[in-house]
Amino acid sequence: MTSELRQRIYQQLASVELIDPHTHINPLDAGSHTLVDILGYHYYTELAHSAGMPREQIEDPAISAKEKVGRLIEGIGPIDNTIQYSWLIDICQRFFGFEGDRLDASNWEALFDSSEAQMADAGWSDEVLRRSNVKSVFLTNDFDDPLAGFDTAKYVPCLRTDDLVFHLGKPEVRQRLEAATKVSVGSWTELREAIGVLFEHFTTNNARACAISIPPSFAPEPVSDGRVETALDAVLKDGVNADESHLRALSHRIFWTLAEMCDQYELPFDLMIGVNRGVYPTGVFQGQDLYDSRVSLIQYQQLLNAFPRVTFPISVLASVTNQELASYAWIFPNVVTNGHWWYSNTPSIIERDAAHRLEAVPRTKQIGYYSDAYKLEFVAPKFDMYRKILAKVLEEYYVIDRSWSEERAVEFGTQVLRGNVETTFKIS
Amino acid sequence: MTSELRQRIYQQLASVELIDPHTHINPLDAGSHTLVDILGYHYYTELAHSAGMPREQIEDPAISAKEKVGRLIEGIGPIDNTIQYSWLIDICQRFFGFEGDRLDASNWEALFDSSEAQMADAGWSDEVLRRSNVKSVFLTNDFDDPLAGFDTAKYVPCLRTDDLVFHLGKPEVRQRLEAATKVSVGSWTELREAIGVLFEHFTTNNARACAISIPPSFAPEPVSDGRVETALDAVLKDGVNADESHLRALSHRIFWTLAEMCDQYELPFDLMIGVNRGVYPTGVFQGQDLYDSRVSLIQYQQLLNAFPRVTFPISVLASVTNQELASYAWIFPNVVTNGHWWYSNTPSIIERDAAHRLEAVPRTKQIGYYSDAYKLEFVAPKFDMYRKILAKVLEEYYVIDRSWSEERAVEFGTQVLRGNVETTFKIS
Amino acid sequence: MTSELRQRIYQQLASVELIDPHTHINPLDAGSHTLVDILGYHYYTELAHSAGMPREQIEDPAISAKEKVGRLIEGIGPIDNTIQYSWLIDICQRFFGFEGDRLDASNWEALFDSSEAQMADAGWSDEVLRRSNVKSVFLTNDFDDPLAGFDTAKYVPCLRTDDLVFHLGKPEVRQRLEAATKVSVGSWTELREAIGVLFEHFTTNNARACAISIPPSFAPEPVSDGRVETALDAVLKDGVNADESHLRALSHRIFWTLAEMCDQYELPFDLMIGVNRGVYPTGVFQGQDLYDSRVSLIQYQQLLNAFPRVTFPISVLASVTNQELASYAWIFPNVVTNGHWWYSNTPSIIERDAAHRLEAVPRTKQIGYYSDAYKLEFVAPKFDMYRKILAKVLEEYYVIDRSWSEERAVEFGTQVLRGNVETTFKIS
Repeated sequence: MTSELRQRIYQQLASVELIDPHTHINPLDAGSHTLVDILGYHYYTELAHSAGMPREQIEDPAISAKEKVGRLIEGIGPIDNTIQYSWLIDICQRFFGFEGDRLDASNWEALFDSSEAQMADAGWSDEVLRRSNVKSVFLTNDFDDPLAGFDTAKYVPCLRTDDLVFHLGKPEVRQRLEAATKVSVGSWTELREAIGVLFEHFTTNNARACAISIPPSFAPEPVSDGRVETALDAVLKDGVNADESHLRALSHRIFWTLAEMCDQYELPFDLMIGVNRGVYPTGVFQGQDLYDSRVSLIQYQQLLNAFPRVTFPISVLASVTNQELASYAWIFPNVVTNGHWWYSNTPSIIERDAAHRLEAVPRTKQIGYYSDAYKLEFVAPKFDMYRKILAKVLEEYYVIDRSWSEERAVEFGTQVLRGNVETTFKIS
Repeated sequence: MTSELRQRIYQQLASVELIDPHTHINPLDAGSHTLVDILGYHYYTELAHSAGMPREQIEDPAISAKEKVGRLIEGIGPIDNTIQYSWLIDICQRFFGFEGDRLDASNWEALFDSSEAQMADAGWSDEVLRRSNVKSVFLTNDFDDPLAGFDTAKYVPCLRTDDLVFHLGKPEVRQRLEAATKVSVGSWTELREAIGVLFEHFTTNNARACAISIPPSFAPEPVSDGRVETALDAVLKDGVNADESHLRALSHRIFWTLAEMCDQYELPFDLMIGVNRGVYPTGVFQGQDLYDSRVSLIQYQQLLNAFPRVTFPISVLASVTNQELASYAWIFPNVVTNGHWWYSNTPSIIERDAAHRLEAVPRTKQIGYYSDAYKLEFVAPKFDMYRKILAKVLEEYYVIDRSWSEERAVEFGTQVLRGNVETTFKIS
Repeated sequence: MTSELRQRIYQQLASVELIDPHTHINPLDAGSHTLVDILGYHYYTELAHSAGMPREQIEDPAISAKEKVGRLIEGIGPIDNTIQYSWLIDICQRFFGFEGDRLDASNWEALFDSSEAQMADAGWSDEVLRRSNVKSVFLTNDFDDPLAGFDTAKYVPCLRTDDLVFHLGKPEVRQRLEAATKVSVGSWTELREAIGVLFEHFTTNNARACAISIPPSFAPEPVSDGRVETALDAVLKDGVNADESHLRALSHRIFWTLAEMCDQYELPFDLMIGVNRGVYPTGVFQGQDLYDSRVSLIQYQQLLNAFPRVTFPISVLASVTNQELASYAWIFPNVVTNGHWWYSNTPSIIERDAAHRLEAVPRTKQIGYYSDAYKLEFVAPKFDMYRKILAKVLEEYYVIDRSWSEERAVEFGTQVLRGNVETTFKIS
């Protein structure tokens, strides 16, 4: 039903091979095995839960994959309007030959069985990548990930650092750090050394980014050596019960040190700003986090000034921060706009957020999209949603409103969709 | 001038009989008597005042209805661009046979006279409901409303609780409470008992919701019995001059108690979040309130977790909070998005707020619209504005962008417009 | 590529002679001399810098105008997507006969030379005004500007007051004030007298507004005579190192006094709310300011109530404040919406901000646009961008969605574009 112009722009964008610069895919188990890996995605469980399905039914450990899918199908009717549901149908049509537009009691079981047979193929993950027109995907690796057993050119490591910055008060995190680095963490000097070992390990294994997700209250600032020693002592002694001021000082200094390491190791530092964890603690797995949209990039002023050589691809959780993001990327050479994250990853929000970035930020400094997928099958439908919106925005704001040629619009879209991923993350 | 597709969607939505889930209509005097009841609506007086008409002219108690209309017509020219003005013209055309698109010195007087004759008909209110395709409207009842003398199936009671939560420091409010409940309020136990009497009275009389409007600074939390006793003692002694901490503690505990009663009596609790009262104290009647858009639903985290069985239909005053509302409704089973309130009740705002809710919130958890009307004649033009926007959004984001069938779009729109009002408020 | 309807609306708006109610033009040197005056605009230097060009290259004082343009052309490729770049091309096409859509190594030098010859004409500034269909432009004058040597009907003075309110702690500002007013500023009485002399000077010279840009944290309130005397003593003694509380008290009282003078001298007081200065101190000239979008007009509640006779044309830096601006203009008679400022002066933002103002604010209280230009050549492309968006919004929201006639839409657009500038600033 869209215009021919929009369809032509879309088709040209769809022909571009993708590099997905942020996912949570497990490279040792990248594709799905049954529909439960698809329907078990938190978007479906949390929406079904929100629509009335009890958590106990959804997370019952005693049931089989097939039973769980059957239950979810029963609870999923009320979410068939959502964009997330459209990804599900896209997957079923694209990969499994499904021909309907809704999954229900009449058709899910046959699909479950036939798709399970397909996914059992040893080459399934590569088949998904091929059919999705995807060259490689970035990972989200725990700091103690051995990064072994997979092709790091196809599954590109990224060092995720939330645990280091926000959870070092937990003994198990420190133990994992010591085990991974062979450094005993009793002083700041040692802790810093351990962090250095992690960067060495990750960059040696083709890591292309350091990444972290951050609550809206975070406002990092430099912390002196003396102060961090005191803070670390307190945290080593009292763990998560240490005084809030000590936990914060340690957190700020570790964060600052990560930026220093990114500078030294020439890694972009992905900041994903704005999430409050556990706002709804009785929600389903991964369906408990929300946010306070009152956050500003001014909180990162010191950081952005202190590290001019570090590239910060920044994602914001709420659309209300999008204009600040675009403005900061317009002024700071080291700020790059990065994708449309989580609660802002829906069409009407992407449409307006993307429209503003495209018109106000240098074309080289915009990473259009990442899938955030946990399973490979989701890369295609999510990117396809984005490509359609990108085509819509390019049609309206460039070809129609600004009289750009179709070629020029497609060239711009292609850079945002793919080229900037290569330049920002130095993919050769 | 709109497309045929959009017109077809609109026509089908327009054929749906409405239940209006929030108004300020007086069931004993529901329709208007002269144009002054229409033009005296605060939207016209405050906009005319803002455009330069002195309050003294507008609120002169010495003039007749007809003189007042004549004066307002003189001052209303500069607001003929506003959407509110379009409701006025819609009413004049729809109910009174007016054929122009502007009211001015040349035509208002004839319309005043002819419309007065129409409105004098004893069946006028029912006639307005019939012509508006409206089955019933929800009311906003003071807590001491006797709820007598009207058909509660047509005019559905709702318990409005602002006075209890925010104004119990005023002696007259406590006196009204004691008179209505026959409970002498000298202790927290008695106050709680009195509140229980109100819920008994309202639910016995077919009440379908408890409702409250809330300033942006409000962040409710539980208050212990000991603390509320101290607070109540102070408030009974010093009234509105009691220490701010006491007033707040009492306010929080009463609010919490309302939620408990909603749980017990199975009433949805409508939260209308974000208004600052009396920002412009020399403005016209009902034209003095504004807001600080820096508010977050995180302020309601404890409440939403504490009352999982209470449904909270939530309205937000500023569009900047709309994404949070949609996100909280997407995660919390007990949060329902509710209409487009007051300063956000204009087309361009509704269009983007509705578009996001439709794509991100389970279809069963969205109450599309309420009129907030003070007189029955306003239900039709306000809902009609909403239906046109809903048709526009369904056309663009569903039929065009997502290739939905027209039937599916209309079915979805109908649920949001009508079906969810029935299920949320248990209208049989 | 736009519709015929939109083009007709646009053409009619384009025929309206403009008065530009806010610029930074130097009336003694209003037009450009070479392309460096165009390409040296901070929008190009800061975007080129953001895209990777070192400041030292951009701001090298040792190079000629032509060399500088050559360098900027090398660095400007990555910003050819931005709306700011489109203004550049518009200027080159409109005034200098350029026929391409991008400036690059192959074509800039010929354009530099031919345009320099054109700009050398003695009547160039008037030629630019004529070709831009502009009658007059408002200036931004330092408080000690002699306002001499130019036609104040064509170049309309405005008193800019940032220095007085925020920088009186600097000795050089006080010296400039004493030099300009011949008043020795040793007490509050004297300081107030000096400010009065400024208003006398400006209004005698056809000034049409007082103006100030304000950081997001500012929340003005009245300050007593005693308090301001203490504050002034401290500031006279310690300058910018005076205690923050003294600096703030003095700042608030001066601001309040400006409003009193605006009342007395019947000048509108332009408030430009939201900028944080020097967020990126190593950025290029004028490319260092950003913002914290967490600001509310509730901070101006006392001011707006205290000065009912002063008109406040208000600009907000971030789009997130636009709904508040429209709501405050809808309620307060003395609030007027004013243009689309700086980081909000891009098409997708203007489109949604304008759409909301047009539907919610009395038609007499909206100043559609100002160029904020430093050189005359920028007035035309910026206003043209706005006119196109205005035509788009009038087409969509009025002629299509609300069935307005084309004539009515054009009449409304014309008032917003021109008429309200005359009435608000009393231009005869």
